[in-house]
Amino acid sequence: MFNSIGNLLKLTTFGESHGKAIGGIIDGFPAGLTVDFDAIQQELNRRKPGQSTIVTQRKEPDEVTFLSGIFEGVTTGTPIGFQIINTNQKSKDYNHNTNVYRPSHADFTYDKKYGIRDYRGGGRTSARETANWVVAGALAKQLISHIKINAFTSSVGDIFVLKPYQDLDFNKTETNIVRCPDEKTADKMIQYIKEVKKDGDTVGGTITCVIQNVPVGLGEPIFDKLHANLGKAMLSINAVKGFEFGSGFCGAKMKGSAHNDLFNENGTTKSNLSGGIQGGISNGMDIYFRVAFKPVATIMKNQQTINSDGNLTEIKGKGRHDPCVVPRAVPIVEAMAALVLADFYLLNKTRII
Amino acid sequence: MFNSIGNLLKLTTFGESHGKAIGGIIDGFPAGLTVDFDAIQQELNRRKPGQSTIVTQRKEPDEVTFLSGIFEGVTTGTPIGFQIINTNQKSKDYNHNTNVYRPSHADFTYDKKYGIRDYRGGGRTSARETANWVVAGALAKQLISHIKINAFTSSVGDIFVLKPYQDLDFNKTETNIVRCPDEKTADKMIQYIKEVKKDGDTVGGTITCVIQNVPVGLGEPIFDKLHANLGKAMLSINAVKGFEFGSGFCGAKMKGSAHNDLFNENGTTKSNLSGGIQGGISNGMDIYFRVAFKPVATIMKNQQTINSDGNLTEIKGKGRHDPCVVPRAVPIVEAMAALVLADFYLLNKTRII
Amino acid sequence: MFNSIGNLLKLTTFGESHGKAIGGIIDGFPAGLTVDFDAIQQELNRRKPGQSTIVTQRKEPDEVTFLSGIFEGVTTGTPIGFQIINTNQKSKDYNHNTNVYRPSHADFTYDKKYGIRDYRGGGRTSARETANWVVAGALAKQLISHIKINAFTSSVGDIFVLKPYQDLDFNKTETNIVRCPDEKTADKMIQYIKEVKKDGDTVGGTITCVIQNVPVGLGEPIFDKLHANLGKAMLSINAVKGFEFGSGFCGAKMKGSAHNDLFNENGTTKSNLSGGIQGGISNGMDIYFRVAFKPVATIMKNQQTINSDGNLTEIKGKGRHDPCVVPRAVPIVEAMAALVLADFYLLNKTRII
Amino acid sequence: MFNSIGNLLKLTTFGESHGKAIGGIIDGFPAGLTVDFDAIQQELNRRKPGQSTIVTQRKEPDEVTFLSGIFEGVTTGTPIGFQIINTNQKSKDYNHNTNVYRPSHADFTYDKKYGIRDYRGGGRTSARETANWVVAGALAKQLISHIKINAFTSSVGDIFVLKPYQDLDFNKTETNIVRCPDEKTADKMIQYIKEVKKDGDTVGGTITCVIQNVPVGLGEPIFDKLHANLGKAMLSINAVKGFEFGSGFCGAKMKGSAHNDLFNENGTTKSNLSGGIQGGISNGMDIYFRVAFKPVATIMKNQQTINSDGNLTEIKGKGRHDPCVVPRAVPIVEAMAALVLADFYLLNKTRII
Repeated sequence: MFNSIGNLLKLTTFGESHGKAIGGIIDGFPAGLTVDFDAIQQELNRRKPGQSTIVTQRKEPDEVTFLSGIFEGVTTGTPIGFQIINTNQKSKDYNHNTNVYRPSHADFTYDKKYGIRDYRGGGRTSARETANWVVAGALAKQLISHIKINAFTSSVGDIFVLKPYQDLDFNKTETNIVRCPDEKTADKMIQYIKEVKKDGDTVGGTITCVIQNVPVGLGEPIFDKLHANLGKAMLSINAVKGFEFGSGFCGAKMKGSAHNDLFNENGTTKSNLSGGIQGGISNGMDIYFRVAFKPVATIMKNQQTINSDGNLTEIKGKGRHDPCVVPRAVPIVEAMAALVLADFYLLNKTRII
Repeated sequence: MFNSIGNLLKLTTFGESHGKAIGGIIDGFPAGLTVDFDAIQQELNRRKPGQSTIVTQRKEPDEVTFLSGIFEGVTTGTPIGFQIINTNQKSKDYNHNTNVYRPSHADFTYDKKYGIRDYRGGGRTSARETANWVVAGALAKQLISHIKINAFTSSVGDIFVLKPYQDLDFNKTETNIVRCPDEKTADKMIQYIKEVKKDGDTVGGTITCVIQNVPVGLGEPIFDKLHANLGKAMLSINAVKGFEFGSGFCGAKMKGSAHNDLFNENGTTKSNLSGGIQGGISNGMDIYFRVAFKPVATIMKNQQTINSDGNLTEIKGKGRHDPCVVPRAVPIVEAMAALVLADFYLLNKTRII
Repeated sequence: MFNSIGNLLKLTTFGESHGKAIGGIIDGFPAGLTVDFDAIQQELNRRKPGQSTIVTQRKEPDEVTFLSGIFEGVTTGTPIGFQIINTNQKSKDYNHNTNVYRPSHADFTYDKKYGIRDYRGGGRTSARETANWVVAGALAKQLISHIKINAFTSSVGDIFVLKPYQDLDFNKTETNIVRCPDEKTADKMIQYIKEVKKDGDTVGGTITCVIQNVPVGLGEPIFDKLHANLGKAMLSINAVKGFEFGSGFCGAKMKGSAHNDLFNENGTTKSNLSGGIQGGISNGMDIYFRVAFKPVATIMKNQQTINSDGNLTEIKGKGRHDPCVVPRAVPIVEAMAALVLADFYLLNKTRII
Repeated sequence: MFNSIGNLLKLTTFGESHGKAIGGIIDGFPAGLTVDFDAIQQELNRRKPGQSTIVTQRKEPDEVTFLSGIFEGVTTGTPIGFQIINTNQKSKDYNHNTNVYRPSHADFTYDKKYGIRDYRGGGRTSARETANWVVAGALAKQLISHIKINAFTSSVGDIFVLKPYQDLDFNKTETNIVRCPDEKTADKMIQYIKEVKKDGDTVGGTITCVIQNVPVGLGEPIFDKLHANLGKAMLSINAVKGFEFGSGFCGAKMKGSAHNDLFNENGTTKSNLSGGIQGGISNGMDIYFRVAFKPVATIMKNQQTINSDGNLTEIKGKGRHDPCVVPRAVPIVEAMAALVLADFYLLNKTRII
């Protein structure tokens, strides 16, 4: 509840962007996995600020320290505690906002809910929290290393990848700073984000995630459907406004005769509008889904707003923020997908006598 | 886990479409509510088969019996057990499918996951299960009666309600059999569904849900965000392929300067692209979201498929099924929304000393 | 929470003693078990009223009906819903108590907590609820049929079984109505209970439970220790006042040099003061524990008390109650132990990669 | 599950005795409490090693650092992350035990369960973990500051406090190093522990806990009974072998006519054999319970044992350990009681409309 996700593989997190550290506890991780620490740091590097010209220029090393649960490089079955020290706590960037509710941020709702105003930037709502998820997701990936999780930027503003994912080479995702495996589209996206940034504005986009080599049978019917848990995990990511899998919203326009996935003799299906999931359970085909991200609310333009006294005021556009959150969100989407799948992978060990 | 939803107000369900009964236990419901039983039955009637010419013609009374937790018409704080007897268990409709995997159904995944084939129709995967949810949701609505939850059919196939929801009169939703408050569009939808049905086919659609009078502060940040739990609840409904709230997938094309909701002096916002939720917490504005339903997989046409021996065969189009699931899903969407909101309403009593 | 027990194998129950039915949902039960229904009814018969001259003379058949989750005699992996109809709802036995708080019952606390007075006997607090547990426990026993769970009456009032459990033949437990495998002691206990009953009084006692053939490794350290969950399960049983395992309260008087269980070469231990559990995890030796039951509060004597208006009054000794709860509690203790062990058995499938 | 305790107020912990740090996350703590940090450190000091001549002479400062969830001294409603650095990791004290199973420790069960041997002392099983609980419990105490929780040493070996708790002055508990408010008995206990220590041995004991000013209505019937959760919490403490509340095991010898607590006109009871709890719910009378601790398994004598290869060997008595765990366990018992009560205090806000 609240700050935990997962049933058997459970991540619980803490931390605010301007506190001493963020971190978490991964409970239920099985014993016996030899941890690849470099792979974890690599995932953190994919998410960290300052990695390219189209993301926020804050400099944070985002180095994770494991405090427990791993002995001589191997998981022990006990909870894995970890933390990431906050080295870049420039509260002064935020002090001018002490009393002001930033439009489309959570300042207002937090203040009204808790009666407390932590004016040091996003506090608990900061996307910095997602670094915790990337750590846990990177470990989860190693637990289900046979399953391949490939997320990529599929649109920025009105610029879309038009090819079906089957025609993309996922190895190219990391070859450009926007994380789009379609190189020509990637160039356009990068160019567009630079323009938006120059203009002091921000822009939204979508991420598509394709999961391959999923065994048949993951997911629990009714209230732990595989796609429902994937959806909840994605909707937990900051700035996400929508989730669709398989045929998604397009499927809502179709007829059953066109939408049904007919079987091949080997149990695979000729089409895959189901998106690899039927009745909440994986059917062995590729799982794919799409996640919508709104534009970042912090813009470099002045905006009219109110303060906590209910008076109109103006908020200045300052600070160092992402013009488009999508490129840095790609590893976050993968991490959350990995956590969900690893959880169901463990659960599935218990479903037959 | 599995067959439960909710943290403090928890619904756990059981039952298959062709067993003796379906039912559930509502745990955590506070003591002291005088139950309006008619209102519960009315919600069940909105969902039940045979209610109109554009839904399945199965006849099931869907009458709920409460077995505990209510004494002299008032909730007692103990678990509310209930059941709905299955009166229409025509297994013969299904017997011809004993050994056959119906395309885009969960036959295949259940069989592979559990090693058991319950060939009597949908079994646990049948949307009959949603009658349980409607019962619990109807009770939840009574707990948070100050909050107004209005779902309606916003598209069928390519026929969309084009008006913004603010221009609709939700009182008209129940005046037509497709549950669309825009009467002209409703007529078109009904006509289209009748054609599709005549053709032995099915069609998808979307439901929009608008929630009004929500107090500020519902929802928990990070892993129990209000919209993430709403999304999970909606994605749990049979045939759902997507969920978006506020600006949704459209928001992913926008710029921050256009997307931000500027404040009025009283704390409301001039626009509401946020969809009433910021940082996972309600801000007091209308919550609205959209849910995509694929076309029903059971069609009245013959389809090639395989049986459990892995041999190609043909499945005949028989049985009594919905040409479009959306009209009957409207009360289900409302029920799930009510369960999520009532849960957060209770949780919120504990978040400040 | 509240009315559920178990992590992976989860029982949720509902029902009051004088409502229409009691029942429950067993979630997480693995698919593929061929259910022995006779064995379940047999456990219910061990618990049911009217079975002998030293228990309450109420007549209730306590027949369970399974509503879901079992198809053609085999568990399907879906939730197992079940109910037991209340056939003996003689509310008139209780009507004279409408307004009166029975001493050492939960009348007062329920009324103060919930503001509702269900005066029809025990309501939710009635030990009738334990019939639900026996159903679920009987199924759990079948899941872990290699583990032998033997509970027996080890004391009634001041009459104790003095032999170590190793000298007892558990096959004799069911040969007498007090369920004590030491026949001479059993005779004394039966005689004593009859005297107490004649006197309109009640008496407490203890149950010892010995669990054999437990695999090494069941239980989770820290907050799901095997003995802590066994203890919680036992303390959930009506009238229980204490729980001890292994050396228990006697161990608190001992020195470490005498208390330590030294190893044999094969990993067994020479003594077993640990009670088969070390660090919360089973070590393969016998698990044994002892549960204390207070005397039943309902006595056939008049007692001074107060009513809900806060006025002194007298409560009459009426109704049909157990002079000693212990003989009927033996199958309940076994059922709860089985639920805990089966839950950990499933969990243990997930703890190593 | 596993490493979490609590429903609404949830503590999740991590850490091994010889890792970098131990710590935890307190989730669900309400916003708005001004934290008394000194009171927290004071509780840690009551638990810490080296505090007197009758406890282990290890020197550990046990200073807690809060990493999140508290802003300007006030709780914010977000998770409270904290850690305690391990400053005293003398693994060399343990290296001689690398391959050896210490009798009545969890070495054997951990190794068999997880396939991993962390030979650096107790690892996760070390009572060092309880420092985390004391931190969380100290915060919980501040949340329910109106409730008074008083634990004390009620026996060491065969030396018992014979007075009823009503005749004790709990202010005297902290005036002696064994934490027994009965001064003469305290002297005997201290003398006895010193003798046992000199002899290289250890001894068990009991702690009694009295909780006063508890409001009526805390606790949930059936599977979250107040005493069952207290019992589980106590049985989670290292070395605990038994739990009884109210009349406890003595009550199992009594008759109902003697055991029943008759009411006074104001709703209090003349006697309190119920121990302040009826039907799992507090009745406003004092709650009291007793916890049995076995003698510490690590003794300063050589013992025969086996190693992980299954060969007989001898383990040497080395290291710095407690001759009697009870004095240091007093604050742990209080902390766990506080966590349970604070959790139910929050839950109770949601049980009536």
